[in-house]
Amino acid sequence: MAITGVLRPGHVQIRVLEMGPALKHYTQVLGLREVARDDKTSRVFLKAWDEHDHHSVVLREAEEAGMDRMGWKVDSPATLKRLAADIEKSGLCTELGWIDAGEQPGTGQMFRFTIPTGHVMELYAERTRLGNNCGTAGEDVNPDPWPDGQTGISPSRFDHCLLYGDDLDGTVKLFTEVLGFGMAERVMAGPDLIGAFLSCSNKAHDVAFIRQPVKGKFHHASFLLGSWEQVLRAGDILSRTKTSIDIGPTRHGITRGETIYFFDPSGNRNEVFAGGYSYYPDKPAITWHADDLGPAIFYHDRKLNEAFLSVFT
Amino acid sequence: MAITGVLRPGHVQIRVLEMGPALKHYTQVLGLREVARDDKTSRVFLKAWDEHDHHSVVLREAEEAGMDRMGWKVDSPATLKRLAADIEKSGLCTELGWIDAGEQPGTGQMFRFTIPTGHVMELYAERTRLGNNCGTAGEDVNPDPWPDGQTGISPSRFDHCLLYGDDLDGTVKLFTEVLGFGMAERVMAGPDLIGAFLSCSNKAHDVAFIRQPVKGKFHHASFLLGSWEQVLRAGDILSRTKTSIDIGPTRHGITRGETIYFFDPSGNRNEVFAGGYSYYPDKPAITWHADDLGPAIFYHDRKLNEAFLSVFT
Amino acid sequence: MAITGVLRPGHVQIRVLEMGPALKHYTQVLGLREVARDDKTSRVFLKAWDEHDHHSVVLREAEEAGMDRMGWKVDSPATLKRLAADIEKSGLCTELGWIDAGEQPGTGQMFRFTIPTGHVMELYAERTRLGNNCGTAGEDVNPDPWPDGQTGISPSRFDHCLLYGDDLDGTVKLFTEVLGFGMAERVMAGPDLIGAFLSCSNKAHDVAFIRQPVKGKFHHASFLLGSWEQVLRAGDILSRTKTSIDIGPTRHGITRGETIYFFDPSGNRNEVFAGGYSYYPDKPAITWHADDLGPAIFYHDRKLNEAFLSVFT
Amino acid sequence: MAITGVLRPGHVQIRVLEMGPALKHYTQVLGLREVARDDKTSRVFLKAWDEHDHHSVVLREAEEAGMDRMGWKVDSPATLKRLAADIEKSGLCTELGWIDAGEQPGTGQMFRFTIPTGHVMELYAERTRLGNNCGTAGEDVNPDPWPDGQTGISPSRFDHCLLYGDDLDGTVKLFTEVLGFGMAERVMAGPDLIGAFLSCSNKAHDVAFIRQPVKGKFHHASFLLGSWEQVLRAGDILSRTKTSIDIGPTRHGITRGETIYFFDPSGNRNEVFAGGYSYYPDKPAITWHADDLGPAIFYHDRKLNEAFLSVFT
Repeated sequence: MAITGVLRPGHVQIRVLEMGPALKHYTQVLGLREVARDDKTSRVFLKAWDEHDHHSVVLREAEEAGMDRMGWKVDSPATLKRLAADIEKSGLCTELGWIDAGEQPGTGQMFRFTIPTGHVMELYAERTRLGNNCGTAGEDVNPDPWPDGQTGISPSRFDHCLLYGDDLDGTVKLFTEVLGFGMAERVMAGPDLIGAFLSCSNKAHDVAFIRQPVKGKFHHASFLLGSWEQVLRAGDILSRTKTSIDIGPTRHGITRGETIYFFDPSGNRNEVFAGGYSYYPDKPAITWHADDLGPAIFYHDRKLNEAFLSVFT
Repeated sequence: MAITGVLRPGHVQIRVLEMGPALKHYTQVLGLREVARDDKTSRVFLKAWDEHDHHSVVLREAEEAGMDRMGWKVDSPATLKRLAADIEKSGLCTELGWIDAGEQPGTGQMFRFTIPTGHVMELYAERTRLGNNCGTAGEDVNPDPWPDGQTGISPSRFDHCLLYGDDLDGTVKLFTEVLGFGMAERVMAGPDLIGAFLSCSNKAHDVAFIRQPVKGKFHHASFLLGSWEQVLRAGDILSRTKTSIDIGPTRHGITRGETIYFFDPSGNRNEVFAGGYSYYPDKPAITWHADDLGPAIFYHDRKLNEAFLSVFT
Repeated sequence: MAITGVLRPGHVQIRVLEMGPALKHYTQVLGLREVARDDKTSRVFLKAWDEHDHHSVVLREAEEAGMDRMGWKVDSPATLKRLAADIEKSGLCTELGWIDAGEQPGTGQMFRFTIPTGHVMELYAERTRLGNNCGTAGEDVNPDPWPDGQTGISPSRFDHCLLYGDDLDGTVKLFTEVLGFGMAERVMAGPDLIGAFLSCSNKAHDVAFIRQPVKGKFHHASFLLGSWEQVLRAGDILSRTKTSIDIGPTRHGITRGETIYFFDPSGNRNEVFAGGYSYYPDKPAITWHADDLGPAIFYHDRKLNEAFLSVFT
Repeated sequence: MAITGVLRPGHVQIRVLEMGPALKHYTQVLGLREVARDDKTSRVFLKAWDEHDHHSVVLREAEEAGMDRMGWKVDSPATLKRLAADIEKSGLCTELGWIDAGEQPGTGQMFRFTIPTGHVMELYAERTRLGNNCGTAGEDVNPDPWPDGQTGISPSRFDHCLLYGDDLDGTVKLFTEVLGFGMAERVMAGPDLIGAFLSCSNKAHDVAFIRQPVKGKFHHASFLLGSWEQVLRAGDILSRTKTSIDIGPTRHGITRGETIYFFDPSGNRNEVFAGGYSYYPDKPAITWHADDLGPAIFYHDRKLNEAFLSVFT
């Protein structure tokens, strides 16, 4: 695998307009578990059932919806230090700096920086482990394949974000040349890159960017399901709870994912999805031409819905 | 991810008693595609549909069934050289040596070595790319999610092997300390390790070993399916073609995989499976106690079938 | 079950503008099998794989798309005679008459009549049996669960039609009081019935009608799949073949069916679907209020797409 | 459909050795809902979520496990009267008689009789309706496709029983000639019928009999699931709760059903299954030869497990 030591998207901090309805959405409809609160910063911390670390989703009450920042877990403090230096050296980022341990509960020191598309990212190497509750005699002994008593859609993991921003070339350069990500798929408008799906793992994407004339915008945070049948069940739960669905169930051309998009009460888009393929760094990047962006994004409809490019937070 | 640069199991060379029936099984029932033959060494080379490299399964006609060797693709010639040196230095392996490029078609130089459980492994960094045939206008442009005209069970990839051998401790030491694999799950008989499920990726296992008083034995080679429904379809195809099924469809406790085991005409066991979880190196190893080996292996039956420990090649 | 002896929708005769593209669609994309041609009447006869009778879909080349007629198989010649008399006596239908055996290949005498919504229906009791090709030693001996070598979407059966017309009350009266159907679900606009889903079996619907100020219009012919995963596969095949998809994959509120709608090259709408519930005549009719027609039809989107009410043939 | 007016298997009364563990199994593991108790007769009444009538499973505490009787709902009191007379006239049954309304809660008068294989059957036309809890504004108005808050495996319906007995010919004669059932599939040992799968609906079986030299024995009661993925989930729940699984998940050759067999704490076998085909009375009966009984029953293993013929209650 990539040798830079970035493990995965570790958290996303999402701004919500009112914590009450937001929490109801994220715990009862999406089905994450609340694990901690920080009243001073108006934040609530949540995790998905199959994650071992303390939390992966942070909700913060604010005046405006959107994403505050996205966090990446790296494999060791040494990697953290090395990558921080590399980022600094690259000259691609702004507002770089170290955040003291404890800014998020159970989380060690973080290195924070703003990438060319205007998004704030942070790297960290340490977070308290809570376990995934499948073990019968202690956390990880003789576990059952899934825990009893799940609520709502109940995805197993926070998986990736799709982000909108202007300087796509700079951000892609950072992720591929400094952070060691691979480009699994890309969208080209003639000679110009307009979409990049980037992986630090065997997943088809850990983060994706689409070029838009904006800074730091948030298209969606995505959560992992185990099957297409669970996507149907998600759609049923969303309809039953009158949650606003954007599109789906359908398939993405890009990544092959089986997906449904919907909105939290503040207008932030969520995705739950299943499927996709095994990505390896030696896989050739798939190229989609912009005039085929329809099937690239929504493989069945073969055209974008109006919201895809115009609705973000 | 692990920083050693081992990408994945790249091939398995399986001995078959008669090439005709074997090929029929692997191409028409399992549904791999034949890509090359080497009459001098009595070998046929095959690939699964979603693999990009030239081949992943090698059949060799021989007097006795079993596995000749398992190959691992690494991320660069530099990694290949470094790992070869590390293996040599470890003193854990025997019969080490370099194999000239071209021993397998389209494949660069390989480093071959015998591990403590008696299995022959080989590392390589280069193999010709054939593509996965999903692209409509060239290999990887605007691809469809799966190719038309598939035959038989048609798994997307060769995924892993389960191997039986005696010096499990030595082999585990090699994979974890020299090759950088993580131990996703393990089976303990009191203080003794009797099973190890090892990952160099985000998969729950890339290779697994079970301690048995034998050298270099082969339990099964496993291939990846996309869903539990495809496992059912596999079972139907196996029954229709009167292929000998060992067990399944069922679920493994270990790895959570949804699985069916069956035999090729020479008695080599194959598996096709779906599901499992996302492995990361910071995940705690799951421990199964030997008196729970039943549900660990076959989660529904909660006991081993007779063949599991006694039938191998 | 209902005691009138209507077994099922036995055929639908669909008008297509050009036979070539139509046949390509119905045989290669939808995946029916051509079983006979009648050049004199410009008709081609097809069947789905799990139907035993000679054919279920009739394509007729004509100037205008739409449905010529829908056929119903009854359980015996005696039932045919009795129902013909009952229909005549009811005074609800026009253009009644007997059609000689052989008007459709392998088919006995038919009783044809036009119902109050303007659709032409025909009853028949006898049709040559072709078998479903699952038996290994003769048609129905030791069969496999599905035949090898399927093409395209490959539904197992023609299932039902949804039809648009004006005199919904008259048509419902005919089906429930004369033909013995049950009303599984209905849509009410205040006191007015505007949609009726009618069953002569354990299916949630064998035919459905929606009130529109037109005569004899055709909304769609629907074909049965075995699972939600097959609905996804259908969507993939439709996209790959650039077939125009109307909506889906999604779920219907009415009947709970998991569905995708698409168009043949002449603009006739097809559906493939899975799921639904077991209907029995003692089940209370489900009522949907017209202001909830959105979720009734498309449970996830919770609103009709533009085409639902405006596009028909 | 068949014109005799038998709607479906309406209930099965099962003997359990201890009510406590039995109830825990049927409500928490299988996931039926308790709806009534009758302490005088040591009975508890339960229903599956998608049934509208008051109950479908009756547990009775007794010294010996097994089935007391199986009930059939008919479409009207007139049909009940007519069938009672026909059964009496047939001379095939013993111990015929009328049971007063109220013997089961909410249930009208029943006609009870013992069939040639020694099983007690009862017909009834009336039972209080409880509803399936999917409606949001009253029972059957704008319903969701499935109710929130399900427990355990949660099948939608009681579906059928498989019974063992000696005079198979007599029982088949009764069901086909007097009660109007069709024979969907049959197992022949040379000229002798040894298994019969009988339908009064569009299901592949509503009851099945296998010839064994016993009287009135119970092989299993079966409950309906919506998908093969739900069969997997059932297996997981059975394993998690340490419920004894007999066999599966697997496919039946007969009926094509996707199935898992397990035991209640008293040793009565249960099945949950999905799939199967649409049965119609004009479908030719499928014939399985006894030397193919293996794949007929368990299509994947292609042989019976030891318990199939030897374990019943």
